[in-house]
Amino acid sequence: MNNPIDDLLQQLRQFRDERDWAQFHNPKDLALALSIEAAELNEVFLWKKPEDADPARVREELADVLLYAFQLADKYNWDIPQLMQEKLSINAAKYPADKARNSAAKYDKL
Amino acid sequence: MNNPIDDLLQQLRQFRDERDWAQFHNPKDLALALSIEAAELNEVFLWKKPEDADPARVREELADVLLYAFQLADKYNWDIPQLMQEKLSINAAKYPADKARNSAAKYDKL
Amino acid sequence: MNNPIDDLLQQLRQFRDERDWAQFHNPKDLALALSIEAAELNEVFLWKKPEDADPARVREELADVLLYAFQLADKYNWDIPQLMQEKLSINAAKYPADKARNSAAKYDKL
Amino acid sequence: MNNPIDDLLQQLRQFRDERDWAQFHNPKDLALALSIEAAELNEVFLWKKPEDADPARVREELADVLLYAFQLADKYNWDIPQLMQEKLSINAAKYPADKARNSAAKYDKL
Repeated sequence: MNNPIDDLLQQLRQFRDERDWAQFHNPKDLALALSIEAAELNEVFLWKKPEDADPARVREELADVLLYAFQLADKYNWDIPQLMQEKLSINAAKYPADKARNSAAKYDKL
Repeated sequence: MNNPIDDLLQQLRQFRDERDWAQFHNPKDLALALSIEAAELNEVFLWKKPEDADPARVREELADVLLYAFQLADKYNWDIPQLMQEKLSINAAKYPADKARNSAAKYDKL
Repeated sequence: MNNPIDDLLQQLRQFRDERDWAQFHNPKDLALALSIEAAELNEVFLWKKPEDADPARVREELADVLLYAFQLADKYNWDIPQLMQEKLSINAAKYPADKARNSAAKYDKL
Repeated sequence: MNNPIDDLLQQLRQFRDERDWAQFHNPKDLALALSIEAAELNEVFLWKKPEDADPARVREELADVLLYAFQLADKYNWDIPQLMQEKLSINAAKYPADKARNSAAKYDKL
């Protein structure tokens, strides 16, 4: 039995291939598509307090971001939990808990 | 034993709480942070052919996008594979394979 | 005597040509560069109340957005005030004052 | 007689006030709106070669970016050509012509 991430990746490949979309899916345009979905996600919050955004729309736009993020990772044959795990360790080192506590400053301003 | 997604979510919550960052993590700013990371991902490709971008940098910036996407989903207590699965079904209906084949057009132009 | 917009455009062309950057300045990458600067502008506001963002940094990042916007318009040989004027008229028609008053809704939801 | 920039700013203020939109126009959301328009501009180029993007759509989306950029500058009462002029001087110092020639590298990598 597959895990849920592999299931999704397999379905995304099938979705792409049934439409012959591999020709468009170079990593630069996949990253661009991801950022456009990120903007659509932001649009749900535009001119609003955070709690006034419609969760159903947030959910859909966030899903589109994730679907492109998974496809970009898959393009490079990367293991998704592993790349996240590695970056989380890097971030933990960049933002030591005792310096970063209660601060929204960027790591180079801590 | 946890699955890798739950493992990551648990570590992200711990990372946040050790730094008292829950005060900053409203969904509007999480979405904004995600889109800023998406722009940093795009920057790796800027002025370049897709194949000339440095994969190590793509990997790190994509990881940051995913880390914020997971935190935003977690903020709403959503199951991540499930929300992706649902949107993939919606997208499959919006882009019927026979109409969308070989086309980069948006669904409302098919 | 030139007007300030033509002055800026002429300086931007000289800036580009002294560095032989015309080779990179296709409109797709100029638009991408613009959106990356827009994200840097957003980063000044991240995790903050609008009034707590540092105006000096807002000013610099907004300037970078404008510099790329002007270069993109110039790439197409467009008159900048004229294209803005035209779109402002379109927006006024999309958002009739009596319907749009006090509403942050998108035009297709008015 | 007004110059074209002041004309546009005056019309933008009138457009906003006829709709009572000043209540929404804090600088954080104006910057967010600008970045969403920047993403719509990028979408015109998505999955395409730069020369295949529809210029009429580029023109409209670029106009929306500029309209928000002008409104954000006006929110801070800034002189637009002056802030652009200042940043162009900063950029010229960050990217000395002899080092930056033929290079798409960021200033800290020159």
